[in-house]
Amino acid sequence: MNTPAPKHFETIINEKEIFKGRVFRVGVRDVLLENGEKSVREVVYHNGGVSILPIDSDGNVYLVRQYRCAFDSEVLEIPAGKLEKGENPPEAAIRELKEETGFSAEEIISLGEYWPTVGYCSERIYLYLAKGLTAGDTHFDSDEFISCIKMPYTQLLEMCRNGQVPDGKTQLAVFKAMEYIK
Amino acid sequence: MNTPAPKHFETIINEKEIFKGRVFRVGVRDVLLENGEKSVREVVYHNGGVSILPIDSDGNVYLVRQYRCAFDSEVLEIPAGKLEKGENPPEAAIRELKEETGFSAEEIISLGEYWPTVGYCSERIYLYLAKGLTAGDTHFDSDEFISCIKMPYTQLLEMCRNGQVPDGKTQLAVFKAMEYIK
Repeated sequence: MNTPAPKHFETIINEKEIFKGRVFRVGVRDVLLENGEKSVREVVYHNGGVSILPIDSDGNVYLVRQYRCAFDSEVLEIPAGKLEKGENPPEAAIRELKEETGFSAEEIISLGEYWPTVGYCSERIYLYLAKGLTAGDTHFDSDEFISCIKMPYTQLLEMCRNGQVPDGKTQLAVFKAMEYIK
Repeated sequence: MNTPAPKHFETIINEKEIFKGRVFRVGVRDVLLENGEKSVREVVYHNGGVSILPIDSDGNVYLVRQYRCAFDSEVLEIPAGKLEKGENPPEAAIRELKEETGFSAEEIISLGEYWPTVGYCSERIYLYLAKGLTAGDTHFDSDEFISCIKMPYTQLLEMCRNGQVPDGKTQLAVFKAMEYIK
């Protein structure tokens, strides 16, 4: 079980774009499996995003609460947004933090990259911790309606542990930030 | 900033199914925003899934390595799978663990639910820690080609911290399992 395993692969025969939206694209692909049989794969293409956990010098973090169409409800989450074309992740993190909370940050610490849904979606999310916050004006997109929520990091950590914050990027950022916050 | 915020909402005017696949569906929705303006939302519908971190009495965990079409590469991740219609999450966890690793588990501990991509996809993932493992035969789906990898939990934790394991469900399970493993 612990010996080097064979390399798994699929050969793409062709792919058809089924949908091209503002947020994602969908492709359906004919593939050849490693046993020589044919199969069909469905892929969501997403440009990737950034998520930022902002923490102030008193140990308070700042979250946003907004309506999310896929759950038809409000969701509590850390500030986040899609990568613009050609934008690098740390730039996007600084921009989204400013847009959604008004904060500028002296320090942006990378908490790493992760892939939220490897089974069918190409999205990569880059996580950051933002420190040295200075308040300023927000700049929401024209179809964004967002409330900002302040709470102690310790409270958010407890809420992530006991299931009160289902958003995945928020949970992961909270756990990965732990070593920088004590 | 810390006062109770207004409730955000969108009113669904209508929705059209754009794609219906084996793994997900896509809908495009006309909505009325809270400021009275119209907008369009794109939603991926997914039936949800389970992910299981199996750990043996020596502190070793078991992962799977498989080709993932959205990244056109192999991905290292904990055993996981889609919820079948009408199946409850702990049953699915026991089934997927058996199918992908061959293990039966005496104990299945819930590590909570999370939503991997709240911005556009309805998927909910239920995380579990599996203990008291007994080896047995695997039962892969006909288009699944999977290698099983064994390593100490401490090594996987280190790999999640330093960016060597980009899969989101694996990272989150590893961090959330920490309190049960020491």
